[in-house]
Amino acid sequence: MNSTVPSPDILTAHLDTANPVDPHAPVMAELMPFPAAPLLCEARIDNEAIELYWEDGERARLPSVWLRDHCPCTTCRHLQTRERLFIPLDEPVPPIEVQLEAGHLQLRWADGHLSQFAAGWLYQRRPEAPAESALPPRKPWCESFTPVRVAHADIFTPRGETAWLEALLRDGLVLLDGGPLADEEVSRIAERIGPQRPTNFGARFDVRSKPNPNNAAYTSIGLALHTDLPNWRQPPDIQLLYCLQNEAEGGESLFADGFQVAETLRQQAPEHFRLLSELAIDFRFQDETQDIATRAPIIECDANGEVVEIRFNNWIRDTLRLPAEQMAAWYRAYRHFWTLLHSPRYQIDFALAPGGMVAFDNRRVLHGRRAFDPNTGARHLQGTYLDRDMLESRLRVLARNS
Amino acid sequence: MNSTVPSPDILTAHLDTANPVDPHAPVMAELMPFPAAPLLCEARIDNEAIELYWEDGERARLPSVWLRDHCPCTTCRHLQTRERLFIPLDEPVPPIEVQLEAGHLQLRWADGHLSQFAAGWLYQRRPEAPAESALPPRKPWCESFTPVRVAHADIFTPRGETAWLEALLRDGLVLLDGGPLADEEVSRIAERIGPQRPTNFGARFDVRSKPNPNNAAYTSIGLALHTDLPNWRQPPDIQLLYCLQNEAEGGESLFADGFQVAETLRQQAPEHFRLLSELAIDFRFQDETQDIATRAPIIECDANGEVVEIRFNNWIRDTLRLPAEQMAAWYRAYRHFWTLLHSPRYQIDFALAPGGMVAFDNRRVLHGRRAFDPNTGARHLQGTYLDRDMLESRLRVLARNS
Repeated sequence: MNSTVPSPDILTAHLDTANPVDPHAPVMAELMPFPAAPLLCEARIDNEAIELYWEDGERARLPSVWLRDHCPCTTCRHLQTRERLFIPLDEPVPPIEVQLEAGHLQLRWADGHLSQFAAGWLYQRRPEAPAESALPPRKPWCESFTPVRVAHADIFTPRGETAWLEALLRDGLVLLDGGPLADEEVSRIAERIGPQRPTNFGARFDVRSKPNPNNAAYTSIGLALHTDLPNWRQPPDIQLLYCLQNEAEGGESLFADGFQVAETLRQQAPEHFRLLSELAIDFRFQDETQDIATRAPIIECDANGEVVEIRFNNWIRDTLRLPAEQMAAWYRAYRHFWTLLHSPRYQIDFALAPGGMVAFDNRRVLHGRRAFDPNTGARHLQGTYLDRDMLESRLRVLARNS
Repeated sequence: MNSTVPSPDILTAHLDTANPVDPHAPVMAELMPFPAAPLLCEARIDNEAIELYWEDGERARLPSVWLRDHCPCTTCRHLQTRERLFIPLDEPVPPIEVQLEAGHLQLRWADGHLSQFAAGWLYQRRPEAPAESALPPRKPWCESFTPVRVAHADIFTPRGETAWLEALLRDGLVLLDGGPLADEEVSRIAERIGPQRPTNFGARFDVRSKPNPNNAAYTSIGLALHTDLPNWRQPPDIQLLYCLQNEAEGGESLFADGFQVAETLRQQAPEHFRLLSELAIDFRFQDETQDIATRAPIIECDANGEVVEIRFNNWIRDTLRLPAEQMAAWYRAYRHFWTLLHSPRYQIDFALAPGGMVAFDNRRVLHGRRAFDPNTGARHLQGTYLDRDMLESRLRVLARNS
């Protein structure tokens, strides 16, 4: 396999991307920007690694097996798909020649292959580099939490869309105002971000009272706080609810930050937190054509003990299958969590106006509504779900040009 | 809240379901069958629990808080949705009267509420009952593993569809033969089970070589074993690949049971298994409109150390971000796993015939294909994804009537 120095064609093809293209720099098959500086001032082979020194005083030691694996030449990465073609199967042949070319790294391997690396790309990826991310970290709601509001017209601008996405990923909830009273507008907004995630209730659902409901949401009763579809192994990540009509008395929307309340529970009653996070229980939805069930704890923690998911839905909680001696304690813990979630300290409420939309993280933020009187007017919401992956992808793409 | 004894209307409404209806038994708002026998021969209140004795000698002690929570009356469960309306918020009022009614349990609570439980329903749910499931356990491939084949016509019968679903959940792979050469037949088969899960490649995708591919699958090159979309937090569960044309030379399909090979790795080299299961790495797909990325280990284990997911895709493995001193060891472990996966001992291959379809568990079974020569004939597959939840639901519904 001979090396291929990127041809001028490829350079030209990349000139219109966000990367700060240096005509002397190797093409890195990357669409995310990497810095043009600092350049390298020294590079040398040391045992099975390359020692790199940048102009700003930073240094790194990268194993040659890593460098060979990341060669960006067009035999090692597919020209169109940018995917890796090189397979790190055999013990890599050693580098025999290292040199700097206009401050960038050039390596000649024992089999003749040539690898070129942009200094800024390596700098961004040196093991000591601070982690970079276009995604905001999660932030628990404070006592005075007020949702970010974005005007409908603004989400069609990069700045407005970025603000909307960042608030949703950071706070788990964001509002949109002043949209049109147009059927399926919720789907149009969703599809700008990614495909709607379909469930047993369809890709897009209507929330209004209807005859022969197969779900409490399709009645006019009040809905205590809950997450949607905890009976799925993977409940929907993000829910969008768009208001088309809201003339009925009542029906205000309710929300609580489940992660924040779970942390409060952990502080107030560690044993209750332990029971809800360690004991898996059953959730199940059944109708004539479906029986969708899974077993999982109400509070899910990752390996570090951090809360990563809430499953809370009293309607589709199935038979509690636990050792008999743990049942009473489990119910006490459940009651405690329920009471905290519904206390005014942690619950926010507002009435969605027609043309308004709320988007929230269904695996973190619980939602509900007050009862409404269907005889006093119509109430009609349209909803859909999105995968979190699609929101994150969108933010990364927006960040390319920011 | 007064109790409501189920009305004759409700009993009638349930008479056409799969439950073995005893006209004297309480209605349990359940669509899954529960046994009509054994009946109860004794029940008594003991402290904060009820002691139950069945005719066959089995017994159980159920906390009264559990019984109150599971009351199936129409004020405690919604008549149409079958969802729980009762909220176990306050310390439950104690039962003051217990009696058997034709062998079924009847409890009167201190507030006057009446709860009736079918003896067989309680029997099925007693804490000592063996777990029941319509779902087959996973079974690793043996050396002589041959995929189950189901005729296309048979999946439209309950027996054939059950066989197809069971093989898919048990073996992680199943074949369908003799289907029509009809565009989108794969979508029709999928939609019988559940909604197609859309991704950045659409709800349904075509696999054939095409100009300007954004993915290696859309070229004619050989594809080493991989899982699809490991760069998503939640890669698709189940993949269906339907063959419409396969006249090109080459292009045979390749598969390996990733769970089985991971176990082999764990036995042969525990340290390699540890590196691949404990060190999260990055996966990333980027094109002009998407940048979908996540960080996860190649082998994911649950809290008990059992393998629950494989993410393996050399094309979209992103920059390896690990402490420099772990990189060389990680590459050795990766090479070991790669070599095992592709060895004839663990890899099966076959040519899909037009009208044939392979379905497999994308989070367990790796797939690939040999290179083909697009000049020797056409090769055209259509694919889609399904959620595992939908397959399990379908099997449970089929089991209602079996």
